[in-house]
Amino acid sequence: MVEDGEILIGKKPFMNYITAVSLQFSKGLEEVFVKARGDNISKAVEVAMVAKTKFLSNVEVGKVSIASEPFKGRDGKNRVASSIAIQLIKK
Amino acid sequence: MVEDGEILIGKKPFMNYITAVSLQFSKGLEEVFVKARGDNISKAVEVAMVAKTKFLSNVEVGKVSIASEPFKGRDGKNRVASSIAIQLIKK
Repeated sequence: MVEDGEILIGKKPFMNYITAVSLQFSKGLEEVFVKARGDNISKAVEVAMVAKTKFLSNVEVGKVSIASEPFKGRDGKNRVASSIAIQLIKK
Repeated sequence: MVEDGEILIGKKPFMNYITAVSLQFSKGLEEVFVKARGDNISKAVEVAMVAKTKFLSNVEVGKVSIASEPFKGRDGKNRVASSIAIQLIKK
Protein backbone atom coordinates (compact mmCIF):
# COMPACT_ATOMS: atom_id res chain seq x y z
CA MET A 1 0.00 0.00 0.00
CA VAL A 2 2.79 2.45 0.79
CA GLU A 3 5.87 3.36 -1.16
CA ASP A 4 7.79 6.56 -0.58
CA GLY A 5 5.84 9.46 -1.98
CA GLU A 6 2.94 7.28 -3.11
CA ILE A 7 -0.20 5.92 -1.46
CA LEU A 8 -2.26 3.37 -3.39
CA ILE A 9 -5.84 3.41 -2.17
CA GLY A 10 -7.45 0.00 -1.68
CA LYS A 11 -9.93 -1.72 0.62
CA LYS A 12 -8.39 -0.82 4.00
CA PRO A 13 -10.22 1.50 6.40
CA PHE A 14 -10.35 5.13 5.36
CA MET A 15 -8.30 6.45 8.26
CA ASN A 16 -5.39 4.12 7.48
CA TYR A 17 -4.80 6.10 4.32
CA ILE A 18 -5.10 9.46 6.05
CA THR A 19 -2.45 8.26 8.53
CA ALA A 20 -0.26 7.02 5.67
CA VAL A 21 -0.42 10.41 3.91
CA SER A 22 0.39 12.25 7.16
CA LEU A 23 3.33 9.94 7.87
CA GLN A 24 4.84 10.55 4.45
CA PHE A 25 4.79 14.32 4.94
CA SER A 26 6.13 13.99 8.49
CA LYS A 27 9.12 12.14 6.98
CA GLY A 28 9.93 15.39 5.21
CA LEU A 29 8.62 14.62 1.72
CA GLU A 30 7.60 17.68 -0.32
CA GLU A 31 4.92 15.86 -2.32
CA VAL A 32 2.81 12.73 -2.01
CA PHE A 33 0.72 11.11 -4.76
CA VAL A 34 -2.59 9.52 -3.81
CA LYS A 35 -3.40 6.92 -6.47
CA ALA A 36 -6.28 4.56 -7.19
CA ARG A 37 -7.92 2.47 -9.88
CA GLY A 38 -11.55 1.70 -10.71
CA ASP A 39 -14.03 1.82 -7.84
CA ASN A 40 -11.39 3.10 -5.42
CA ILE A 41 -11.11 6.42 -7.27
CA SER A 42 -13.92 8.06 -5.25
CA LYS A 43 -12.18 7.01 -2.03
CA ALA A 44 -8.87 8.46 -3.25
CA VAL A 45 -10.47 11.87 -3.86
CA GLU A 46 -12.10 11.69 -0.41
CA VAL A 47 -8.75 10.77 1.23
CA ALA A 48 -6.95 13.64 -0.51
CA MET A 49 -9.61 16.22 0.38
CA VAL A 50 -10.03 15.12 4.01
CA ALA A 51 -6.24 14.94 4.53
CA LYS A 52 -5.90 18.47 3.16
CA THR A 53 -8.89 20.16 4.82
CA LYS A 54 -9.04 18.38 8.19
CA PHE A 55 -5.53 17.14 9.03
CA LEU A 56 -2.76 18.85 7.07
CA SER A 57 -3.25 22.60 6.96
CA ASN A 58 0.11 23.09 5.21
CA VAL A 59 -0.74 20.84 2.23
CA GLU A 60 -2.51 21.73 -0.99
CA VAL A 61 -3.74 19.81 -4.02
CA GLY A 62 -1.43 20.02 -7.02
CA LYS A 63 -2.01 18.31 -10.35
CA VAL A 64 -4.81 15.77 -10.67
CA SER A 65 -4.44 13.37 -13.60
CA ILE A 66 -6.62 10.56 -14.89
CA ALA A 67 -5.72 7.76 -17.28
CA SER A 68 -6.67 4.36 -18.66
CA GLU A 69 -4.30 1.70 -17.36
CA PRO A 70 -3.93 -1.79 -18.78
CA PHE A 71 -3.65 -4.58 -16.19
CA LYS A 72 -3.93 -8.36 -16.00
CA GLY A 73 -7.18 -9.57 -14.40
CA ARG A 74 -7.40 -12.55 -12.02
CA ASP A 75 -8.39 -14.71 -14.98
CA GLY A 76 -5.15 -13.75 -16.75
CA LYS A 77 -6.93 -11.66 -19.38
CA ASN A 78 -5.78 -8.16 -20.27
CA ARG A 79 -8.17 -5.50 -19.02
CA VAL A 80 -8.28 -1.72 -18.83
CA ALA A 81 -9.16 0.30 -15.75
CA SER A 82 -9.46 4.03 -15.21
CA SER A 83 -7.02 5.47 -12.71
CA ILE A 84 -6.34 8.70 -10.89
CA ALA A 85 -3.21 10.30 -9.42
CA ILE A 86 -3.67 13.23 -7.04
CA GLN A 87 -0.59 15.25 -6.16
CA LEU A 88 -0.50 16.71 -2.65
CA ILE A 89 2.18 19.36 -2.11
CA LYS A 90 3.63 20.89 1.05
CA LYS A 91 3.02 24.66 0.92
CA MET B 1 -28.50 15.61 -15.54
CA VAL B 2 -27.63 17.70 -18.57
CA GLU B 3 -26.98 21.40 -18.85
CA ASP B 4 -25.08 22.90 -21.76
CA GLY B 5 -21.40 22.10 -21.39
CA GLU B 6 -21.91 20.10 -18.22
CA ILE B 7 -22.82 16.48 -17.42
CA LEU B 8 -23.55 15.58 -13.80
CA ILE B 9 -22.94 11.88 -13.23
CA GLY B 10 -25.57 10.07 -11.17
CA LYS B 11 -27.26 6.68 -10.97
CA LYS B 12 -28.39 6.32 -14.59
CA PRO B 13 -26.85 3.62 -16.82
CA PHE B 14 -23.26 4.24 -17.86
CA MET B 15 -24.00 4.56 -21.58
CA ASN B 16 -26.55 7.35 -20.99
CA TYR B 17 -23.70 9.58 -19.90
CA ILE B 18 -21.46 8.61 -22.82
CA THR B 19 -24.34 9.53 -25.15
CA ALA B 20 -24.86 12.81 -23.29
CA VAL B 21 -21.18 13.75 -23.68
CA SER B 22 -21.22 12.87 -27.38
CA LEU B 23 -24.39 14.90 -27.93
CA GLN B 24 -22.88 17.97 -26.34
CA PHE B 25 -19.86 17.88 -28.63
CA SER B 26 -22.04 17.20 -31.67
CA LYS B 27 -23.90 20.42 -30.84
CA GLY B 28 -20.63 22.19 -31.54
CA LEU B 29 -19.43 22.84 -27.99
CA GLU B 30 -15.64 23.15 -27.63
CA GLU B 31 -15.53 21.82 -24.08
CA VAL B 32 -17.68 19.68 -21.80
CA PHE B 33 -17.28 19.23 -18.04
CA VAL B 34 -18.03 15.81 -16.55
CA LYS B 35 -18.89 16.37 -12.87
CA ALA B 36 -19.71 14.15 -9.90
CA ARG B 37 -19.87 14.04 -6.13
CA GLY B 38 -19.08 11.32 -3.57
CA ASP B 39 -19.42 7.72 -4.75
CA ASN B 40 -20.15 8.80 -8.32
CA ILE B 41 -16.62 10.17 -8.78
CA SER B 42 -15.20 6.80 -9.96
CA LYS B 43 -17.99 6.57 -12.54
CA ALA B 44 -17.25 10.12 -13.78
CA VAL B 45 -13.60 9.24 -14.41
CA GLU B 46 -14.70 6.05 -16.22
CA VAL B 47 -17.21 8.02 -18.36
CA ALA B 48 -14.56 10.61 -19.30
CA MET B 49 -11.91 8.00 -20.19
CA VAL B 50 -14.26 5.73 -22.16
CA ALA B 51 -15.78 8.68 -24.04
CA LYS B 52 -12.30 9.86 -24.96
CA THR B 53 -10.65 6.54 -25.84
CA LYS B 54 -13.55 4.59 -27.39
CA PHE B 55 -16.02 7.08 -28.82
CA LEU B 56 -14.60 10.54 -29.40
CA SER B 57 -11.20 10.38 -31.07
CA ASN B 58 -11.06 14.18 -31.40
CA VAL B 59 -11.47 14.88 -27.67
CA GLU B 60 -8.81 15.06 -24.99
CA VAL B 61 -8.78 15.47 -21.21
CA GLY B 62 -8.06 19.02 -20.05
CA LYS B 63 -7.93 20.14 -16.44
CA VAL B 64 -9.12 17.79 -13.72
CA SER B 65 -10.05 19.48 -10.45
CA ILE B 66 -11.25 18.14 -7.11
CA ALA B 67 -12.91 20.00 -4.26
CA SER B 68 -14.97 19.74 -1.07
CA GLU B 69 -18.50 20.94 -1.70
CA PRO B 70 -21.00 21.85 1.00
CA PHE B 71 -24.56 20.62 0.37
CA LYS B 72 -27.79 20.07 2.27
CA GLY B 73 -28.51 16.42 3.10
CA ARG B 74 -31.98 14.83 2.92
CA ASP B 75 -32.31 15.41 6.65
CA GLY B 76 -31.74 19.14 6.13
CA LYS B 77 -28.30 19.09 7.76
CA ASN B 78 -25.29 20.72 6.14
CA ARG B 79 -22.81 18.17 4.87
CA VAL B 80 -19.60 18.15 2.86
CA ALA B 81 -18.89 15.90 -0.11
CA SER B 82 -15.84 15.56 -2.31
CA SER B 83 -16.39 16.42 -5.94
CA ILE B 84 -14.61 16.22 -9.27
CA ALA B 85 -14.82 18.21 -12.50
CA ILE B 86 -13.17 16.75 -15.60
CA GLN B 87 -12.75 19.04 -18.59
CA LEU B 88 -13.01 17.39 -22.00
CA ILE B 89 -11.80 19.54 -24.89
CA LYS B 90 -12.27 19.24 -28.64
CA LYS B 91 -8.81 18.98 -30.25
